[in-house]
This record gives sequence, structure tokens and C-alpha cells, in this order.
Amino acid sequence: MTPTLQLAFDLIARRSVTPDDDGCQALMMERLAAAGFTNEQLRFDDVENFWSRRGSEGPLLCFAGHTDVVPTGPEARWSNPPFEPKIIDGKLYGRGAADMKGSLAAMVVAVENFVQKHPNHKGSIAFLITSDEEGPAKNGTVKVVETLEARNEKIDMCIVGEPSSTNAVGDVVKNGRRGSLGAVMKVQGIQGHVAYPHLAKNPVHLAAPALAELAAEVWDNGNEFFPATSFQISNINAGTGATNVIPGELEVVFNFRFSTELTEDDLKRRTHAILDKHGLDYSIDWNLSGLPFLTARGALVEASVKAIKDITGLDTELSTAGGTSDGRFIAPTGAQVLELGPVNATIHKLDEHIVAEDLNTLTAIYERILENLLA
Amino acid sequence: MTPTLQLAFDLIARRSVTPDDDGCQALMMERLAAAGFTNEQLRFDDVENFWSRRGSEGPLLCFAGHTDVVPTGPEARWSNPPFEPKIIDGKLYGRGAADMKGSLAAMVVAVENFVQKHPNHKGSIAFLITSDEEGPAKNGTVKVVETLEARNEKIDMCIVGEPSSTNAVGDVVKNGRRGSLGAVMKVQGIQGHVAYPHLAKNPVHLAAPALAELAAEVWDNGNEFFPATSFQISNINAGTGATNVIPGELEVVFNFRFSTELTEDDLKRRTHAILDKHGLDYSIDWNLSGLPFLTARGALVEASVKAIKDITGLDTELSTAGGTSDGRFIAPTGAQVLELGPVNATIHKLDEHIVAEDLNTLTAIYERILENLLA
Ligand SMILES: [Zn+2]
Ligand SMILES: [Zn+2]
Repeated sequence: MTPTLQLAFDLIARRSVTPDDDGCQALMMERLAAAGFTNEQLRFDDVENFWSRRGSEGPLLCFAGHTDVVPTGPEARWSNPPFEPKIIDGKLYGRGAADMKGSLAAMVVAVENFVQKHPNHKGSIAFLITSDEEGPAKNGTVKVVETLEARNEKIDMCIVGEPSSTNAVGDVVKNGRRGSLGAVMKVQGIQGHVAYPHLAKNPVHLAAPALAELAAEVWDNGNEFFPATSFQISNINAGTGATNVIPGELEVVFNFRFSTELTEDDLKRRTHAILDKHGLDYSIDWNLSGLPFLTARGALVEASVKAIKDITGLDTELSTAGGTSDGRFIAPTGAQVLELGPVNATIHKLDEHIVAEDLNTLTAIYERILENLLA
Repeated sequence: MTPTLQLAFDLIARRSVTPDDDGCQALMMERLAAAGFTNEQLRFDDVENFWSRRGSEGPLLCFAGHTDVVPTGPEARWSNPPFEPKIIDGKLYGRGAADMKGSLAAMVVAVENFVQKHPNHKGSIAFLITSDEEGPAKNGTVKVVETLEARNEKIDMCIVGEPSSTNAVGDVVKNGRRGSLGAVMKVQGIQGHVAYPHLAKNPVHLAAPALAELAAEVWDNGNEFFPATSFQISNINAGTGATNVIPGELEVVFNFRFSTELTEDDLKRRTHAILDKHGLDYSIDWNLSGLPFLTARGALVEASVKAIKDITGLDTELSTAGGTSDGRFIAPTGAQVLELGPVNATIHKLDEHIVAEDLNTLTAIYERILENLLA
């Protein structure tokens, strides 16, 4: 058992279902303190976070991540208990193995190795760790970043340990993320009896052509870095359950994942234009969860691409596909932000697992990036 | 407070949400027994019904109706509590005021008045009352009619107390009803994360154009007796509640009210043609609740038209518009069936109400019909 796998086991064994940290951060801080880091606990409300730094010079390279995990679902449906990590046929099973306790273990061990070899490295190394990434994400990274900004402490480069890889560790890194704009729409009709349709207004009938048009709309074609903006209805509900009542209201929940070709306002304006064209009586409660961001090629991307090639032989793909991450809070400070972690095939699922050896590879990649940038 | 209004109050105060009767029928039977009727309780499964008859000769004129009411929706949104009947500005408020406890009160009082004046009336008078009209309607009128048929007890004429009127009591009577064909449709997609739409298939997006087309379709133009066939979606549901999950299935519940211009098979065939044209992966569970029926001019229609003219001065309109009623189970036995009741503008809605005085008028109309046919 390598040091990375041992630490991954110790982290997975803690039941840190969001927003609980359950001692994961204390374990990390203990290791980092021993490696010469200065730890700073930053608790906001019921959320544990910490900031840890080694060195006072620039550039500052930060490892970011979260100790919380998503709920397990019915534990009985796991082949192996989710909080009892186990390696079976070379695969490490457990909730958080991929998202993202494996990455946390790899970061800590990579840094330990690096500072042992380079006790007087250039610049600074930091950790920004939260236990509120999988939940509302209100008292985690966003608040730590505010704290750093307030005292003018600048992150130059940031590696987020989110599971970015598709088939083999390092095959994909995320150098940006699409924006995410959510909406809860209520379309008003007039409730009535199905036998007296002239006394009622069916909001499902009124909305159907507008929903068809929203679903068919080409919002943009993406660009060099981003796939096309996507509109998805996640929930639609109308009706009392009775089969003879025309519903009075329709609720539609939808979400945009959007590229840098469009702004939040563009999306709102065009959505309203389509709904207004169909003459709907509606209201929308919008919720922006993140603007799109992009880290162009530069020191961090180059160091990472090279490290992956050297360690794995893979020509990594830069991608902005996939879901939001806490990178959306760090990028606006001007930092270069990159997400690099294990294969994401089983995240948030029953029997979450990764190839155990991938964590050792990931450790070597992280260490090589440190070598490339701060040795 | 007239006897009819007093009895309507007593019935509305009972929380007889379908299929509960909550003592309404016991109250009616007590009154009918006192007026010389023989009551017969007919319970099928969890549904209370009764058949009550006065006289053994023909013709048999039956009053039919239901004591159950539709759910109230959020009681807090009622201006006045739905089961605390109250007259405000001359209007009687309460769930069931229009559909159809007001009619039940009027029937009972009209019959009481009539038999007091004509204790030795011609023919027979009966009541066929169920508490399963607003629900599945499986253990109500249909079963009572089967019981009567089995012992060869024939209803010659039947007045169903459904709220047939549009603006003033008696302005419309229903001498037939459209057919009703229900459907539960499930449209299959592939569940996934909103951030990875290419791995999913959103059944809401796929179905929206087909639903728009079904809603816009002209199924027929009706005929001399029937309004145009109508299609209504009563319920639509998809989504887990999570805002980042593309649903795997969409459920749509819809209903046709159809004229004699179309058959059940026509409707099914044309629905499938539209859905198939849009390439949907779907299944439909069809449920025919009644074929269209028509009662041509004859003794019952003439007696009713004349009674309405004499009491109200109105030239009543014969209509087949509106919802199904239990008349669909009685008409196939060969009975003349007519629906005559109060104004239906607020049935199944919040703040259901009628003009209080209309119940006294309705009582007089029912009594005059009895005079015209059985005095
Ligand atoms: Zn994660
Ligand atoms: Zn009714």
C-alpha cells in the first residue's frame, strides 16, 4: 500500500457526507503542518474549510478541493460498504474514491514528496479545502476566496482535484467550465373541468409549443474552447392527480449550461422573447450558479500538459465540458485554474470506484507539475 | 332559510370527499323514509350507494345523483372554509354547493312537497344515489344499475341533478353526453446529468412538439347534438426534483370528450399517428369511461321544458356539452335521461358557489316536473 492509497483509505473511511467534514481536514492539516505549512481554519456557519500555505513569495500555486461527498443512496445496494474502502481486482471502492478524496490524498503526498526534495522551493504552495462543494456551496470556497481577496492574498495558479479524466487518468483536464443558469418557470392558466374547456385555460397546452421551441433553439454553436450552449428541462409538473381537472398552473424547471459566446442576459432575453411570442402568462425565478470561465494556455496549462505526457505518455485533451466546480469561484480572481483528477465514470453513483494505481500516477503528475513550476 | 337551503347546508357541512359519503346518504334516506319511500342500501366495496322507491307501478321516474365531492385544493385559499356553508351576498358558498349537494336537497324537498300533495301519485318515484361519481365510478351507479337490471327493475325516466345550467338555473338541460376516453401515456428517454446532454435523451424535449400538435388538432366539428370533440392534458410529470438531472421518463395523462362523429378507435388511431410521426418511444394505457349517448324529445324532455318555462320563463336549451355523468350508465338501459341542475360556473374550483335562491327555483322545477308526469 503506497502512502497515497493509505491516505485515501483514511479519508474515505470518514463519513463526510456533505456538509460534514468528519475529521478529514484535521488529518490533512496534520500532514501539511509536518511538511512546513501554516494552517488556517476558516469555519463559516456549519461548514469547515481550511487554507494552508508554505512560503510567502509568488507565484502561489494552490491545490483546491473538497472533503465532502454526495450521499450514498441505499448502502445495502453497494457491493462493498461505501465508507469501508477496499481494493478489489485492482480497483479502489468507496464513496469519494473518485470525487475527490483520492485526489486529496494524491495532492498531500505529492506535496510531501516535493518539499522533501525541494525544501527551499520557489514561490509558495497552498491548499484551499472545503466541505461544502457538493451541497449549497455558499459557505465554502466562495467565502474562503472572499477572505483571501480581502487581505489581497492572490492565487496565481490553481489545480482543482475534480475527477476530470474520462478513460485513463490525465487523458482530459478541464481548463474552463461552462456557465450554469437555472430557472423555475410557472405558467398560469385557469383551472377547470376537462368537460368545460371553454371555461378553463390549459397551461400545458399553452406552453407546449413554447417548450418545443426552447428545446429546438440553437443558442450558439460554442467556440474553440466551449461546446454549444445547452438547454435542458429537468422537471415539469402540472395537475392535481385527478384525471378530469384542467390544471391551473404548470411548473417547468430548466437549466442552461452556457459558453462564453453568450451572457446571462442574452439567455434571459432570448428565453423571454420565445415565451412572450407565445403569449404566455408566466413568471421565472432565475438562479445563476456560475459564469463560464476559461484558462487559456500559459504556465499552468503547459506545466500540466508536459507533466501528464512525461508520466503517462498521454497527450491530454483540454476540455470545458461537464458540470460546474468550485473553480468557478477561484477563476474570477484572475487565477489560472485547471481541473485535474481521476476518471469520473462512477462519481455520484453506487459502487463509486477508480483504478487504485491511478492514484499513484496522479500523485506523480501533481509532483511533476510542482517540479515544472516551483523547483 | 327554506327547507331546501337548510338541507343543502346540512349536506355541504359533511366532508364527503370522494369516495366518502360521511353520512349524507343516511340523512337523505331518513327524509325519504318519512315521505313513504323504501330504502335499500347498496354498498359495493368501500362505496356507499342507495336505491329508494315509492310506489310499485310504472312509469318509474328516478332522481339520480352523488353525495361525494371533489377535493377542495388548499383550504386556506378558500374565502370561506369549504365545509362550512355560508350565504354571502345571496350566494351559497361551499364545496358541493353546485356539484351537487344543492340538487340533492332540491330533489328531496321537491319530492316531499309533491307526495304531501299527491300521496297517491301515478307511477313510482325513485332515488339512485352514489358516493363514487367524482372518483373511479366503478362501485357506484354502474353497480346499482346492474343490480336493478338483474331483477328487471326498469327506470323509465331519470333526472340527474348535475349542474347543467350556464347563467341561470334551467337555461340549459343536458339531453345527452359526449363520450369520455382517458389515457395515461409514458414517454421514454434516457436519464442523465444536465451537464452531459449527449449521453441522455430528454423525453420532455422529445414530446413537446407532439403535445403541441395534439393540443392544436381539430378532432371533429361536432354535429347538431354534440359540440366538437375536445382533447385536454390533465397531468404532466417528469423529473426527480433535482435540478441537474435530465429525466428518464415523462408521464402525460389526457382525456378526450368526444361526439358521435368519432369512435373510440378513431381517436386512438389518430393519437398514435401523431405520436408516431414524432418518433416517440411511448406506451399508452387507454381507459374508456363512457360512449356518447342521446335522449331525444319525448315525455321527460317535454315535461321538463314546460316546467322550466312555467317556473322561470326561460326557453331551455337542450345540450350535450360538458362532462360525463352517471347518466352514461343509466341511458344504456333504455331510460330517458336528462340532466338538470344549478349553474356550473364554479364547480370543482376554489370558492364553489351558486345563487342561493336558485335552489328554491330548482326545487319548484323538480316539483313541477313531478306534477307534469305523475300527478
Ligand atoms: Zn467533486
Ligand atoms: Zn357532479
